[in-house]
Amino acid sequence: MLDRINSSADLKKLTPEDLPQLAEDIRNYVVTSVSRTGGHLASNLGVVELTLALHYQYEFPPDQLVWDVSHQSYIHKLLTGRRDRFTTLRQYGGLAGFTKRAESDADPFGAGHASTSISAALGLAEARDLLGQKRHVIAVIGDGALTGGLSFEGLNNAGARKRDLLVILNDNSMSISPNVGAISRYLTTMLTDQSYNKIRDDIWRFIGRLKRAEKIRSAVSYFEAQVKGLLVPGVVFERLGFRYFGPIDGHDLPLLLKTLGQMKELTGPRLLHVITQKGKGYEPAEKDATKFHGVGAFNKVTGIAEPTGDLPAFTTVFGKKMVELAAREPKLTAITAAMAPGTGLTEFAQKFPDRFYDVGIAEQHAVCFAAGLAAGGAKPVCAIYSTFLQRAYDQIIHDVALQKLPVVFCIDRGGLVGEDGPTHHGAFDISYLRAVPNMTVAAPADGDELEQMLEYAVTHRIGPVAIRYPRGMIPYPVGSRPGRFEWGRWEVLNGGADLAIIATGAMVPICRTVVEALHAQGVNASLINGRFIKPLDTEALQEIAERFDRVVTVEENSINGGLGSAVLEYFDIIEFRGRLLRLALPDRFIQHGSRERLLQEIGLDEEGIIRSIETILKPKRPLWNVLHLKRNGRKPADEKPAETPMQEVAPSQDGEDGETM
Amino acid sequence: MLDRINSSADLKKLTPEDLPQLAEDIRNYVVTSVSRTGGHLASNLGVVELTLALHYQYEFPPDQLVWDVSHQSYIHKLLTGRRDRFTTLRQYGGLAGFTKRAESDADPFGAGHASTSISAALGLAEARDLLGQKRHVIAVIGDGALTGGLSFEGLNNAGARKRDLLVILNDNSMSISPNVGAISRYLTTMLTDQSYNKIRDDIWRFIGRLKRAEKIRSAVSYFEAQVKGLLVPGVVFERLGFRYFGPIDGHDLPLLLKTLGQMKELTGPRLLHVITQKGKGYEPAEKDATKFHGVGAFNKVTGIAEPTGDLPAFTTVFGKKMVELAAREPKLTAITAAMAPGTGLTEFAQKFPDRFYDVGIAEQHAVCFAAGLAAGGAKPVCAIYSTFLQRAYDQIIHDVALQKLPVVFCIDRGGLVGEDGPTHHGAFDISYLRAVPNMTVAAPADGDELEQMLEYAVTHRIGPVAIRYPRGMIPYPVGSRPGRFEWGRWEVLNGGADLAIIATGAMVPICRTVVEALHAQGVNASLINGRFIKPLDTEALQEIAERFDRVVTVEENSINGGLGSAVLEYFDIIEFRGRLLRLALPDRFIQHGSRERLLQEIGLDEEGIIRSIETILKPKRPLWNVLHLKRNGRKPADEKPAETPMQEVAPSQDGEDGETM
Repeated sequence: MLDRINSSADLKKLTPEDLPQLAEDIRNYVVTSVSRTGGHLASNLGVVELTLALHYQYEFPPDQLVWDVSHQSYIHKLLTGRRDRFTTLRQYGGLAGFTKRAESDADPFGAGHASTSISAALGLAEARDLLGQKRHVIAVIGDGALTGGLSFEGLNNAGARKRDLLVILNDNSMSISPNVGAISRYLTTMLTDQSYNKIRDDIWRFIGRLKRAEKIRSAVSYFEAQVKGLLVPGVVFERLGFRYFGPIDGHDLPLLLKTLGQMKELTGPRLLHVITQKGKGYEPAEKDATKFHGVGAFNKVTGIAEPTGDLPAFTTVFGKKMVELAAREPKLTAITAAMAPGTGLTEFAQKFPDRFYDVGIAEQHAVCFAAGLAAGGAKPVCAIYSTFLQRAYDQIIHDVALQKLPVVFCIDRGGLVGEDGPTHHGAFDISYLRAVPNMTVAAPADGDELEQMLEYAVTHRIGPVAIRYPRGMIPYPVGSRPGRFEWGRWEVLNGGADLAIIATGAMVPICRTVVEALHAQGVNASLINGRFIKPLDTEALQEIAERFDRVVTVEENSINGGLGSAVLEYFDIIEFRGRLLRLALPDRFIQHGSRERLLQEIGLDEEGIIRSIETILKPKRPLWNVLHLKRNGRKPADEKPAETPMQEVAPSQDGEDGETM
Repeated sequence: MLDRINSSADLKKLTPEDLPQLAEDIRNYVVTSVSRTGGHLASNLGVVELTLALHYQYEFPPDQLVWDVSHQSYIHKLLTGRRDRFTTLRQYGGLAGFTKRAESDADPFGAGHASTSISAALGLAEARDLLGQKRHVIAVIGDGALTGGLSFEGLNNAGARKRDLLVILNDNSMSISPNVGAISRYLTTMLTDQSYNKIRDDIWRFIGRLKRAEKIRSAVSYFEAQVKGLLVPGVVFERLGFRYFGPIDGHDLPLLLKTLGQMKELTGPRLLHVITQKGKGYEPAEKDATKFHGVGAFNKVTGIAEPTGDLPAFTTVFGKKMVELAAREPKLTAITAAMAPGTGLTEFAQKFPDRFYDVGIAEQHAVCFAAGLAAGGAKPVCAIYSTFLQRAYDQIIHDVALQKLPVVFCIDRGGLVGEDGPTHHGAFDISYLRAVPNMTVAAPADGDELEQMLEYAVTHRIGPVAIRYPRGMIPYPVGSRPGRFEWGRWEVLNGGADLAIIATGAMVPICRTVVEALHAQGVNASLINGRFIKPLDTEALQEIAERFDRVVTVEENSINGGLGSAVLEYFDIIEFRGRLLRLALPDRFIQHGSRERLLQEIGLDEEGIIRSIETILKPKRPLWNVLHLKRNGRKPADEKPAETPMQEVAPSQDGEDGETM
């Protein structure tokens, strides 16, 4: 049946009775497809009926549907002409895993981060009325995203503006982690009070039947309007200016169709509270919706994920080290914003529940709260993904750095995250953090360094420290590399006199291979682990400037304002007159696809880095387009006689192993 | 009486009956003092009794008081040992206009931006319990700041955590602009329903007296608990997990003392709703609290501000141009976040109420909403101060730039703002915006340029544009400088062959004087108006690189990642081998004081710029500490023969006038 549906219009050719069968077809299709491509599964299975009902009652476009976060938009994509490309989901060049304006005119507003939908939908509604258009504007937001302050700001403004706007609260009691906070408890209370409406009706009937009722009729007639507003479960939404409807079962298609049909005729800001179950209809996902929130490829029958590598992720190393540190240090606390499993803090939360704070999707609060903890004498470690930390930029500046409060930021997903694409890449953190005074910014190259940095950072009491590391596995096992860690100092991993490569974070292991490949071509490069980006290791940089006339920086952060810029700024001060080649993410948004493919696209894979480096090995340097010259595989004559490495440091054994990358 | 009070302990030596007299003394003292120093007046006059009552019932320290925004903390400062320095308020080296940890241990958490107090106080409360301390933690937050999503995130988390925490809602129905939004209407409704509590009591009494009451006794006994929770005016706070008390009169000292005394014994999260009047007790401020929100020096008797310069502020030029553009362009809309007067949009709001959106203190929503407007086909201009725009960094990246939506950001208060100090300086916007792909960043040097940029920006439909300009007056009247505006292109203001100075924004008029002073010393500098920072005018830069071997950049933004870094990055690509001197804000927070004094401190006044430039005029350049060399007033021999200016452009007449700076 799905084959015949390419738009809301096509869907309307079916009878309402056909829809349950279509829902089942869609569930099968989505489970099969996502088991191959990976993706967000549980949330999409939860909104099959809701999406069908919306498309049956509305038409997108001209009506506009804004999905909050939008990882639950797969069914919407299937119904809006993107079915034939659905097998390319989240793959390089394929369909995005989120809504995207460039992908379809059924996507009026893209997303990826939470809590934006009400604000964006209100903007669309205001524009519609300003331009005199007729269309419905609908936002679908989960209960988890409702915790984000931006949602509240949007509700507050929309409730006052009074435009026609429908907000659907998709309440599944789970965002990425189980939900937290008072608003979540409030929603739960509503649901458990099933006797509520009945009792209310009883009382009103009862008062009406009384003989002495007349005596208070006048008071009641005034009071009734007030009290009626208060006695519905959605009183908070009512107080914010919305007409509240629900809660209703979000898997009951006839009820959804009827309710949406009736609400269509109403005006002003309306909120429909719909209860859905994540993972609905696929048993493994129903049982463990957290696991099936976002998945890689898995076995459709068993629900078991396909095996990945043997090495732990940076995330795992961080989580383990936090547990170890917390056992020693009673003031250590951990804060996250609905990312407990994603940041590796699940074990910490179990072992130290009193010192673990999952504040829900509320990054601003997470950071300001951490500042309060630090001001009160605790030792807060705030673990937030790079892309979401953008939400707390003002709190980092105004609440933490200005007051020199010792908050440790552990920034997971720094650099390209792969299939989640541009909304989720951690492309800017080095740039935006480097501009902040009093901030230390570091990036470990491996698991040992992450542990060492974290261990030191919690003792660093004179200001905040940011440690950023990538999504993905550590390059070799923890403990397999001899520790040469010194706070604030860079490390020479390989000595060579022809050029110096300063790499940071995940680019360090890649550059180890680059150095080997260059060596095979007769070029001897020094590889420096530029693990501290702010403050710079100026002593090392001074030495590099004296010994080399070709320096390369390699980082997985925007070319604007990152490590390369920092080195350049210092080189400007000391008047380095050699050639500096800065390799970084280009000044554009990188699309989705496997991390490997994306690194290749932008020339930050091994081959790309080598190709770029070769351009500066040419004896005569071109003024323009240095990045686009043809390959020149031979090492040029080098004026510099220095053949000794900067320090007598032998490359470590394990780190050199290309297989572990 | 005030003379004897240096702490909460001193205050307790007075009897409660003494306090009204003390309140009057304090009002007089504050009005007199602020009429000389300038400062936030109306908000402080509104909290005299509240502050006295808090200090009478608690002791700070060990108890901790977190003032939201904290411009209303003057009385608190007077009572905590800072009276003798109060005349230095907001002056260079003097008392800060906000709470400040470094200033007193009675300030456990500093502020300046709104909505942080609940999150910070919760952090302090959690740290207190973790460390086993005994102390009260209190946050005082205004109704305006409650609109900010961060407040909601804080309430949501605090309500669920259940720690002992007192939040005082200081409801004066006015933040910077008159308040907006549903939460504000909600608070107003509470207050106007004076009959509310009485009616509730009547009904309950009535039901109890009924003969047939037994029939529903069981239902009511269950229901009563629910309904009681709902029938208090603070139902929204109750639903968020707070025990709500109030509203009470915030100028009734006996009532405040009694209520605070009683609430002190309670545990868990509590919210006390206090009604105050801004400007209370000083007639001019009572009548126009907006005007007396933040003031310069004024006549205490008349309330009339001391005269300032003749020229309009950049803010005023922006506001006028917006009105002109809106008359021509029906799709033009203006958005601000509780900064309508501050951003110059008052007239726009009056003339085009349907296209004006003051969303309250909610910067995240302002930007996301603007993105929605743009996606819907409107032309949004979003006017927010530089420092507050930090709050919306994620929305700029994720909602606007990624989707290439044509939102125009008009960023007032770019650069140093003076007396408000480090929480308010716009020190980072060029850095953090330059890292964002698809973003155009421009800075006008004068009123004409602001108008020209704005006029063009609203036609720029391929992505966002940010126009940043300083607090303060335009350097010469609008229309007095011949227009040489071209989108994306720099402008040569003065031709000289010895060095090139690229200045941007407010640094351009200062550098005009610098150029004149250098000329008097026999040094001929070219002055380039670097009005577009992203994308750079690379054609101009290419020419500069070819013609000069000494280049200076001057900007009022962090040295990390600003215009200087952008020029440096481009010079690196084209392998410029001359000397580049980057003058900018240093990598530290700048304290408060007059803008002139601050610019002098950091060497961005005329003399400081000249002194820095002189260091690179020396024929032999030192490797180190170029900024700290002694003066060398003579022009060195210059190898470059070029004596013709880059373009045959005569310096404009009005801009050269030093008096208008």
